[in-house]
Amino acid sequence: MALFNGSVVPLEEFHAFIVRCSKSVGISDNHAESLAEMLVSADYRGHYSHGLKNLERYLICVRKGIISGAGTPEIVKQTAATALVDGHKLLGPVIGNFCMDLAMEKAKTAGIGWVSVRGSNHYGMAALYGLRALKQGMLGIALTNTSPGMAPTRAKENILGTNPICVAAPAKDGDGFMLDMATSAVAYGKAINAKRIGEPIPEGWAVDKQGKSITDPNFVYGMLPLGGAENTSGYKGYGLAMMVEIFCGILSGSNYGHNIISVSDQINKEANLGQCFIAINPEAFEEGFLDRMTELLNYCRNLDPVEGETEVLVAGDPERKHMEKCDQQGGILYHPEQIKHANSIATSCNVQPMKILKTLS
Amino acid sequence: MALFNGSVVPLEEFHAFIVRCSKSVGISDNHAESLAEMLVSADYRGHYSHGLKNLERYLICVRKGIISGAGTPEIVKQTAATALVDGHKLLGPVIGNFCMDLAMEKAKTAGIGWVSVRGSNHYGMAALYGLRALKQGMLGIALTNTSPGMAPTRAKENILGTNPICVAAPAKDGDGFMLDMATSAVAYGKAINAKRIGEPIPEGWAVDKQGKSITDPNFVYGMLPLGGAENTSGYKGYGLAMMVEIFCGILSGSNYGHNIISVSDQINKEANLGQCFIAINPEAFEEGFLDRMTELLNYCRNLDPVEGETEVLVAGDPERKHMEKCDQQGGILYHPEQIKHANSIATSCNVQPMKILKTLS
Repeated sequence: MALFNGSVVPLEEFHAFIVRCSKSVGISDNHAESLAEMLVSADYRGHYSHGLKNLERYLICVRKGIISGAGTPEIVKQTAATALVDGHKLLGPVIGNFCMDLAMEKAKTAGIGWVSVRGSNHYGMAALYGLRALKQGMLGIALTNTSPGMAPTRAKENILGTNPICVAAPAKDGDGFMLDMATSAVAYGKAINAKRIGEPIPEGWAVDKQGKSITDPNFVYGMLPLGGAENTSGYKGYGLAMMVEIFCGILSGSNYGHNIISVSDQINKEANLGQCFIAINPEAFEEGFLDRMTELLNYCRNLDPVEGETEVLVAGDPERKHMEKCDQQGGILYHPEQIKHANSIATSCNVQPMKILKTLS
Repeated sequence: MALFNGSVVPLEEFHAFIVRCSKSVGISDNHAESLAEMLVSADYRGHYSHGLKNLERYLICVRKGIISGAGTPEIVKQTAATALVDGHKLLGPVIGNFCMDLAMEKAKTAGIGWVSVRGSNHYGMAALYGLRALKQGMLGIALTNTSPGMAPTRAKENILGTNPICVAAPAKDGDGFMLDMATSAVAYGKAINAKRIGEPIPEGWAVDKQGKSITDPNFVYGMLPLGGAENTSGYKGYGLAMMVEIFCGILSGSNYGHNIISVSDQINKEANLGQCFIAINPEAFEEGFLDRMTELLNYCRNLDPVEGETEVLVAGDPERKHMEKCDQQGGILYHPEQIKHANSIATSCNVQPMKILKTLS
């Protein structure tokens, strides 16, 4: 939730702004649409770490030719239910949409589609690909490997990424389950925030250069896997991060683990990330899937909360609340610094700046 | 690891003993073999919670007709890559082997096989089904729902099980990755052990009846999901447990979540559990899968350990060490109480007791 005063930008205007900027650096029309859809969706869902904040980075990479702004991913190999794809260093969301659509096409007849891809780039908010499946009444899974930022349990060196997992399952009337989680305890950004405001971080989030669990955010070297230290089962998060790497990098033949270059180096060199997209058609299984999903989700939501809490949520509910807030205020709320950043992108792209609907104070 | 003196029983003898007991209660030959294979494998791998300890329970259920000792699971619906199966309340390992074999058969041509099953029972150690895929050079995933023992984040009531995840991937020369983990922080048994020896449990393992995180094992009501409390991302473990429930119970139409009867009630009433078995054929993806797997696993193992640790492991290594120890000592080491328990089963089944190779002291 945005806890500041700022400017409200309608979704369509943010979308149009991204398309303007994208075209100015030579991104083709369709690809610009895919990039805009992903970035708007991220901020709209409240994941500001994956929206406007990243626009400039994508534009720079396309300008430099590190990411291609036009072309089509290639199906290298396929069966009735699987495909190996080469993303040919296109924009992450272009590759992600292509692969999830391919997985769904296969799931229509084969019940499931499993697509692993190499030659890909940062695909942004994973939930986007899960949502794509939900819209077709299917279950969707999206996985990606990422730059090293987490050490295996007992090790000092960061050789695995935060390797996130997205799992989406539809329920009745547009409701659904939408899990989108890093396999690290928390995202690196959370430790950065704590450092900025001078607060300690909880035990179980991060380690220093010696691999020691720390609470002082000034000495963060890497994130701990989900579960934290070994005595609270951090090796399970380590195992899940390895699973993601196996389905993404090892199956596809992309870079993996310690071979993946850092996020900052990805501005100068091809990332060659690996990703995995899975669609499951509930019609291939027992009838009444949506009814059972709705019953389970609502059963959870209606449970008695523990003292001090007002409600029990299911995965996807926090984002749903954020979108409702955006709808009420007429768009996405941006901090003055974010607007300044968007304006500087507009100047460098020589396009019209993002139009503001209103300023809240 | 067994940290006691006791009796060593060769694997073949333990296997033969289980088959003797099983036949005495009317379990058919093939089913007895499947049950024996699972229970032996569990103790051999060091998971004593899933081996001999559970034999009596399976026998009682078959005697009572709660579990059927003969018959075949039924394919209700299928596509080239998926199947919905009814387990017809057969023994869990019989159903598990049937479903994993079916998934692998489909994966041979479709690249992947995804089988969800209802009408199942406790299938024991999940790694067994992953191993089955490894032996055929495939990746294997096994998931099962379980009786409620974990509350959703912020809730007081246990409505989800520890819903374990097994993911196996082959590497060269019989090596492999073998993740077999509950989506709760730890297994309930770990809290029981702490209570028995009068030690506090770490923060992040369990909650009391009010849903408050506790360190006194005397007040454990339920386990916390992987990640622990909300500020260390316990909602991720909650989300993973929900994912398992969706792929098992919701897809198959079995009992799920709050509808699953307790483990103790499963001696008097059909469990109707849901499970999910997935096989992935690496040949459908980029060549050289085994080489990349071996490189990744060994890279992890060769990392510098943090101070106080001697080695970095990958999922499956602790079990590998336990099996080596068993091989060295000529079989599985059992505590005198376990041998006594096995002998009482022999008496009640009116079969020859388990023969002991030697006693260590």
